[in-house]
Amino acid sequence: MARIKNKNRIGIGLLGLGVVGGGVARILTQKAEVIARQAGCPVAINRILVRDLAKKRSVKVDPLLLTTNPQDIITDPDIDIVIEVMGGESPALELIKESLLRGRHVITANKEIMAKHGRELLTLAHQQEVDILYEASVGAGIPLIATLKQGLLANEITAIRAIINGTTNYILTRMATEGLDFSTALRQAQELGYAEADPADDVEGIDAAYKLAILATLAFHTEIRPQDVYHEGITRLAARDFRYAKELGYAIKLLAIAKETDQSVEVRIHPALIPEDLLLAKVDGVFNAIQVDGDLIGRLLFYGKGAGDLPTTSAVVADLIDLSQSITRGRSSQFQMTLDASKSLKPFSEIETRYYLRMSVADRPGVLAQIAKVLGDHSISIASVIQKEADVSAQTAEIVIMTHPSRELAIQKALQEMERLAVVKEIGNFIRVET
Amino acid sequence: MARIKNKNRIGIGLLGLGVVGGGVARILTQKAEVIARQAGCPVAINRILVRDLAKKRSVKVDPLLLTTNPQDIITDPDIDIVIEVMGGESPALELIKESLLRGRHVITANKEIMAKHGRELLTLAHQQEVDILYEASVGAGIPLIATLKQGLLANEITAIRAIINGTTNYILTRMATEGLDFSTALRQAQELGYAEADPADDVEGIDAAYKLAILATLAFHTEIRPQDVYHEGITRLAARDFRYAKELGYAIKLLAIAKETDQSVEVRIHPALIPEDLLLAKVDGVFNAIQVDGDLIGRLLFYGKGAGDLPTTSAVVADLIDLSQSITRGRSSQFQMTLDASKSLKPFSEIETRYYLRMSVADRPGVLAQIAKVLGDHSISIASVIQKEADVSAQTAEIVIMTHPSRELAIQKALQEMERLAVVKEIGNFIRVET
Repeated sequence: MARIKNKNRIGIGLLGLGVVGGGVARILTQKAEVIARQAGCPVAINRILVRDLAKKRSVKVDPLLLTTNPQDIITDPDIDIVIEVMGGESPALELIKESLLRGRHVITANKEIMAKHGRELLTLAHQQEVDILYEASVGAGIPLIATLKQGLLANEITAIRAIINGTTNYILTRMATEGLDFSTALRQAQELGYAEADPADDVEGIDAAYKLAILATLAFHTEIRPQDVYHEGITRLAARDFRYAKELGYAIKLLAIAKETDQSVEVRIHPALIPEDLLLAKVDGVFNAIQVDGDLIGRLLFYGKGAGDLPTTSAVVADLIDLSQSITRGRSSQFQMTLDASKSLKPFSEIETRYYLRMSVADRPGVLAQIAKVLGDHSISIASVIQKEADVSAQTAEIVIMTHPSRELAIQKALQEMERLAVVKEIGNFIRVET
Repeated sequence: MARIKNKNRIGIGLLGLGVVGGGVARILTQKAEVIARQAGCPVAINRILVRDLAKKRSVKVDPLLLTTNPQDIITDPDIDIVIEVMGGESPALELIKESLLRGRHVITANKEIMAKHGRELLTLAHQQEVDILYEASVGAGIPLIATLKQGLLANEITAIRAIINGTTNYILTRMATEGLDFSTALRQAQELGYAEADPADDVEGIDAAYKLAILATLAFHTEIRPQDVYHEGITRLAARDFRYAKELGYAIKLLAIAKETDQSVEVRIHPALIPEDLLLAKVDGVFNAIQVDGDLIGRLLFYGKGAGDLPTTSAVVADLIDLSQSITRGRSSQFQMTLDASKSLKPFSEIETRYYLRMSVADRPGVLAQIAKVLGDHSISIASVIQKEADVSAQTAEIVIMTHPSRELAIQKALQEMERLAVVKEIGNFIRVET
């Protein structure tokens, strides 16, 4: 079972020397002494896979370590741990698999791969009596994976509510505090390097869906794949939604939500109104925060930078020390994912929550009665209505409705019906409320 | 080195069956299956040390497990792990030592013992090739110890700023939000069971000093003893301090602060003004929050319940699963505290920070000039002055001064001199500012 090696050196194969790879290489040199003391022996890089040998790099590494041939890493008998920081699905996935098959431990920062193939890779690692660690894949340096795998094991986790995409949180913060519209805030985020030229992965919630799939799988002991996660982005939000939300005592955040009730798990990413006195509502800028509810711990919240080369390196090196200790002290296959097959996934149409509805209506008597009737027909009860600014020339008024908890399906049907009402000029937006 | 036992059962000796002990006993029964799966074999209680066999208890345990003789636990060859949840220094310390000497792993929730004797116990455990784990000793279920020992290992920690006493945070929250004075808020906390009949340990910062000693020792790799921690309580705070602080954009919290600069470590507990836009300023009620700054991670914050039977049990059971895995998978003596003897402790008189000074002065011209002169004589420069409400009948006015960063020693001397000025009726309060 446990295989103790009398190691006098742990060899690392590094797949990728981009921002994160460069950070890992630099820290392994800078902190070699600290890492060796913790690991029990020196830890050093044997080879580094790069795409272009000639490329100029900010990090200084021995050019002899570089290779463009992955086989130089996969087949090197002196490499104990392969660190995958190249990103993307292929060829990273194949290289991780091959490494595991050859009995190498693996560390990856790759959320896409762990979200899509985590179960398969963990099973393979277990069969091969090695570990695959992935702390950096969610929340960078915030210790989430280790906490879910170890620190909270005694708990039944009931809910995760998280801000796990810094790009969108930056954009939403600018919209909320400065009244910017989405496209202006996005452009500024792009100028600052917080958002990519093609921002779809972030602003549509795809990146967050990968991360939530990883967290929910660990928290609920059931396999959640990225395609199981409903995701809706932030592009429909208007500056006025933030204004109205604030008046009502709420902030708007792109939330990753995972809940379990009666063996049924719901996982979704969408903008949400959250009460402004919640700590989560106060998480601004590029920061991430992950709120976890458990039967013993009550509510925990973890806050920190969710991206960047240094925070990511912090997580990778923590995994590296952990694995090195396994190697020098003879522990292996530490983590075994136990899955509870009895849990089911709740269809998105069945979720139940409160809703914020903003619509532009004809500015005349009797309008609200018509809207209230449609809602009532679908068993949606109104918690409050606020009439907002009227456009006198167009003879329209804007109203904001907060509902009591209602079914998603009912809301969708009611919205369709309301759109057909002559008095409803436009459904401006509807946003789920998370309390 | 690693000793693998083919265990078919891990035996537990429980020292204490109070609030926490009862919680542990209950969860070990309720979650036996989950724990066994994670541990690799069943984990069950062999014996429980209690003071009174006849006492009525809310938790149901087999009466045959109870004993009043600690030797029944210490000498039981089937006990692998001793869990100490009796609290207090003696006889808990002796029992922990004896357990380690007999080759038992130990889990303790005892902050006093770990703060005062942690180094000795960790060394003893290492010599005996066993572990002593103490996650529950600080922040209950918030995974802090494991994070400092593992997750943040790659980081150079530069500062910890923490709210680690729920009782005082509850009192300060009531004072801030409702304008209560200290004694009223304390009495209400006592009525709700948040504060003890003798509240000194909490309100004087002694409890927080134990916890900070434990955290700072781990974070800075140097032994910090409780007596090294300067501590000052919350009893001098007045309702008006919260009002003035708020006007200036600050909250007041009892902060546990540990910082390292140039191999010199400062550790202190005292009320502090903190900018109200800091997440830490928004931590209210009995909750705890620990903010950690590191060179790679930047700023992390952990938030949760810092006390209570269930959160504490969460931490104890996490430690238990960790140790059980060590036993079944043959890993031992995992944690080795490495101490850096070159670090020194900064005397409290040498700390440098900004100060909030509130004083009652004669309401006439020239007063401020006299006060400013005293401050100037001690190289303390004024950042802002606000004249607060005047008491016309007494011909006094209240002024609040915010200083630029100044030495503690200089402030102390200046305060002494100012008290001797005829125009100064009373130094109302002075509070350090932490940004």
